[in-house]
Amino acid sequence: MAAEPVEPAPPPAERLERLRAELRRRSLDGFVVPRADEHQGEYVPARAQRLGWLTGFTGSAGLAVVGPATAALFVDGRYTLQVEAEVDGSLYAFRHLIEDSLSGWVAGAVPRGGRLGYDPWLHPVGWVEKLRTALEREGIDLVPCDGNPVDAVWPGQPPAPLAPVEPHDDALAGMSAGEKRQAVAEALRRDGIGAAILTQPDSIAWLLNIRGGDVPCTPLPLSFAIVDDGGAVDLFIDSRKLPAATRRHLGDGVRVLPPDALEPALDRLGRGGRRVLADPASAAARIFDRLHLAGAHVVRQGDPCALPKACKNPVELDGTRAAHRRDGVAMVRFLRWLDGAAADGTLSESAAADRLLAFRQEGERFRGLSFETISGAGPNGAIVHYRVTPATDRRLEPGCLYLLDSGAQYLDGTTDVTRTIAIGTPTAAMRRHFTLVLKGHIALSQARFPKGTSGSQLDALARMALWQAGLDYDHGTGHGVGSYLSVHEGPQRVAKAPNAVALAPGMILSNEPGYYRTGEYGIRIENLVAVTEPAPVPGGERPMLGFEVLTLVPIDRRLVDAALLSVEETAWLDSYHSRVYAVLAPHLEPGDAAWLLRATIPLAG
Amino acid sequence: MAAEPVEPAPPPAERLERLRAELRRRSLDGFVVPRADEHQGEYVPARAQRLGWLTGFTGSAGLAVVGPATAALFVDGRYTLQVEAEVDGSLYAFRHLIEDSLSGWVAGAVPRGGRLGYDPWLHPVGWVEKLRTALEREGIDLVPCDGNPVDAVWPGQPPAPLAPVEPHDDALAGMSAGEKRQAVAEALRRDGIGAAILTQPDSIAWLLNIRGGDVPCTPLPLSFAIVDDGGAVDLFIDSRKLPAATRRHLGDGVRVLPPDALEPALDRLGRGGRRVLADPASAAARIFDRLHLAGAHVVRQGDPCALPKACKNPVELDGTRAAHRRDGVAMVRFLRWLDGAAADGTLSESAAADRLLAFRQEGERFRGLSFETISGAGPNGAIVHYRVTPATDRRLEPGCLYLLDSGAQYLDGTTDVTRTIAIGTPTAAMRRHFTLVLKGHIALSQARFPKGTSGSQLDALARMALWQAGLDYDHGTGHGVGSYLSVHEGPQRVAKAPNAVALAPGMILSNEPGYYRTGEYGIRIENLVAVTEPAPVPGGERPMLGFEVLTLVPIDRRLVDAALLSVEETAWLDSYHSRVYAVLAPHLEPGDAAWLLRATIPLAG
Repeated sequence: MAAEPVEPAPPPAERLERLRAELRRRSLDGFVVPRADEHQGEYVPARAQRLGWLTGFTGSAGLAVVGPATAALFVDGRYTLQVEAEVDGSLYAFRHLIEDSLSGWVAGAVPRGGRLGYDPWLHPVGWVEKLRTALEREGIDLVPCDGNPVDAVWPGQPPAPLAPVEPHDDALAGMSAGEKRQAVAEALRRDGIGAAILTQPDSIAWLLNIRGGDVPCTPLPLSFAIVDDGGAVDLFIDSRKLPAATRRHLGDGVRVLPPDALEPALDRLGRGGRRVLADPASAAARIFDRLHLAGAHVVRQGDPCALPKACKNPVELDGTRAAHRRDGVAMVRFLRWLDGAAADGTLSESAAADRLLAFRQEGERFRGLSFETISGAGPNGAIVHYRVTPATDRRLEPGCLYLLDSGAQYLDGTTDVTRTIAIGTPTAAMRRHFTLVLKGHIALSQARFPKGTSGSQLDALARMALWQAGLDYDHGTGHGVGSYLSVHEGPQRVAKAPNAVALAPGMILSNEPGYYRTGEYGIRIENLVAVTEPAPVPGGERPMLGFEVLTLVPIDRRLVDAALLSVEETAWLDSYHSRVYAVLAPHLEPGDAAWLLRATIPLAG
Repeated sequence: MAAEPVEPAPPPAERLERLRAELRRRSLDGFVVPRADEHQGEYVPARAQRLGWLTGFTGSAGLAVVGPATAALFVDGRYTLQVEAEVDGSLYAFRHLIEDSLSGWVAGAVPRGGRLGYDPWLHPVGWVEKLRTALEREGIDLVPCDGNPVDAVWPGQPPAPLAPVEPHDDALAGMSAGEKRQAVAEALRRDGIGAAILTQPDSIAWLLNIRGGDVPCTPLPLSFAIVDDGGAVDLFIDSRKLPAATRRHLGDGVRVLPPDALEPALDRLGRGGRRVLADPASAAARIFDRLHLAGAHVVRQGDPCALPKACKNPVELDGTRAAHRRDGVAMVRFLRWLDGAAADGTLSESAAADRLLAFRQEGERFRGLSFETISGAGPNGAIVHYRVTPATDRRLEPGCLYLLDSGAQYLDGTTDVTRTIAIGTPTAAMRRHFTLVLKGHIALSQARFPKGTSGSQLDALARMALWQAGLDYDHGTGHGVGSYLSVHEGPQRVAKAPNAVALAPGMILSNEPGYYRTGEYGIRIENLVAVTEPAPVPGGERPMLGFEVLTLVPIDRRLVDAALLSVEETAWLDSYHSRVYAVLAPHLEPGDAAWLLRATIPLAG
């Protein structure tokens, strides 16, 4: 989790001037600097933090454009305040990443006939095609660069990470890498595809049953791979990351090649005349360019590992259930501790997060956090992507709500849970808002739906109680979760945006509606659930899917306004709490078990 | 409504042989015969009923492919029984329109190197592109035909319809044609588009405030139009359809040209170098081919009239409210009559439909049915797209459910309502299923949702009560409805399939969940609703949209199992019934009003 060391940088204005000089050297009038690496991943290694080095902006999404005389930094709504604090507004104009037009800004900053450079390893192909079309209308050329110009002017740029890659036991994976390779190969043959380019490290980790440590919070081995329709894999990875045991584990079907062998391999694939799959949502533009140049018949289709990875097998589901038991134990110990520690109003957000980490570390198979904990008291809880810093660290004061969104990586599963906790006595408004969020959470939890249903069809269930009250939240309702892998994985999703991926048995998703009152408090209730095939109800004619709740952590009863719940909703909460107690109590010390018993008393007397 | 006269045709085998001879003459190895006209409309004039003439199949969707020695007829699940009754199975293999591969069948029927013909006026461009790509892999050429080969062998093919086109009063339209043309022109200018090709007659009818009569049930003037970014319109229509008053109404901004002037006009547009809009969902492939050949910059974008047409203005909404009052009066008179007429078990489906039509005809501004009435008793009610024929006409027997889906065209609005009525005493299962459907209907009716929400996000609300019981229905939940225009119009829709069109104030939609028990009974409850901006609720922070129910017809209380309804659901039904009575009673004779009072007694005593 600790950031890699970075050498002291020259002041921002000088960094920008050095980059402009480098661009002039290359006959470029401008350059685009995204917050991205070659894998379009959520976590980016220090070496690829070019946007942060250049501008000082530390947010998790953004993009700078440097023109001959002006520059702009595009960030989304989460970061409009942060960017002003971190970045020199005399060097960069601030623009909205979604609402403002990138090509429009470029048209004003780069002269007609000018050349705007980009690093084709750092953008998906669709982004490049769309921007190229828009800039053509302005008479501006979008030019791919060989070698990133920022790297040329960044003294002390960190090297690529070299964390060792470990085998992930078949006993945890539930399926050998050989079986997985054959299953993917069969799917490729079915679609008449000769080979697929894998650019997402979590797909490669899943396929080969390996785990790495190149980025924080997710056990990713940064690498590329090509899998062919016979199940043979070429793995492009720095061989220093592979201990002998891992090499043995990879076996004969996997050829290890250095990263710079990827581009020649793409050329060979292109010349081979076979249909080659690359995922336009995640593969870099460079992959497509190289394949096209070599004459490949490129099939733009989703990563072939994404769906099988998303549908956990019974062994993985048992693993995640065990991981959630351990995580539940840590959370219950923490919540009991919190009830005491928060009483005098001196506990800080960061101290609470540290203490929760300590409880988790005492659990078996713990491997670290699955993301940086969101520990937000009062108004900080209303900042959806809040991360505590020394400057923002608040006390948990009596009368406030405390929002805690956290998760862990265990060898047998990944967790992600949010609870909102009353510190002292909550107001009626807090209880009403909490209960509306809870109603949405319950509606999604107990939904049944036919095969073929996508998450976007179910999203409104989690929002309807809020919508009826004239309220809403501005984030998705549920994301996919990996098995000791990414805490955010596709292809399924529960959100307003259309998503055609049908929910399928074994998929793990979060269920996390919320409500945020800016400057006052934030509420979110998040469990992970697995898609199941429940037994048919009497009189039912069609098989339905449903959800098994994985997360085992009590929901704060002090925040529930029971008068707003229907009989069925109350029954759901009581039944959930009864299960939480029954499963966790045998693993708790008597004091913790007694606390949990009180925390899970039924609402319905 | 009466079908145009068609000359007696030779036997099916001879029709097929004559077509094959014509194909050989044109050096074609096969030909595709869809059930479609040049406008991709739901209703197809007799002249374009080529599929029906060739094969004998009378369903409303389907496609035949004729190969050198074999032929196939593709129909969807609604028509698998009907096609076997109507079509000679020794001439045509029957395939599923959705599940079976057209290109797969062609690959088996047409030799490699062969040429499959199609009429480029009868297919959308996307269909052609997809089939061409698939057939390329099989080494088969997909070839556009000049002149449809079926027409060459169809003696007595009916001529194109020539129904007179009438002005649609500004007092009903709420906006003059000139204002509409300017609004569309402004939208084109905003998108940098020089002209748009309009191929949908309902768009042209809306834009020019005209109504025609070329197809049954919808007042469409079959025609094409081009509207440019100055608001000038070229209308391509047989001038015999335009009485002098209509020509005067069209005015100076509209130039009337014969239909065969369209293709030269496309050429001129192409040579003009302007960006030209055509809607890939509805415009024929021929439009795109011609534009591309002429060098046009074609912008594939939705019909620019679709969204403004869908969002009814206050005058249109008042009109539809008035039309629904008249339609409600006719329905109430019918339902009261039905209670008596069905008592002895001798009333037939067709007699009931005829009687309903007679009641509607007595209302003011009535212009005909908006679609062929679905009048289904018992098992016929379970056939979703059932239309009564002499062969299927059932009696409404005691103990059965009677499903009645009907609607009318009034000068000031289009209606569409489905009620399911208990004939005699319903079973407990019927009442349970009816109440589950009603719960879904109510959930959608009372939904509130933020701007930007699409119908596919709300679809699950109408299904959840059924899903929880292991039940579902295999049709959409809601379609758009026109203003004295098509009873099915886009672009909005409430359905499982993703649809990105946000619901917007003024849109009219149906709300029609159902349940179908094959061989026993069918249930559907359909109201039309308009999207509104209701007053904010106390404590609400965001403006929400909601629905105003337009349809004013009682829901059969004898089928409601009140024990299955929540307090809120019961209140919705009682409040709806109270409004139905209050609005309709002043327009009813005392006997009908007394009947309605009994039919709308509150459930909650």
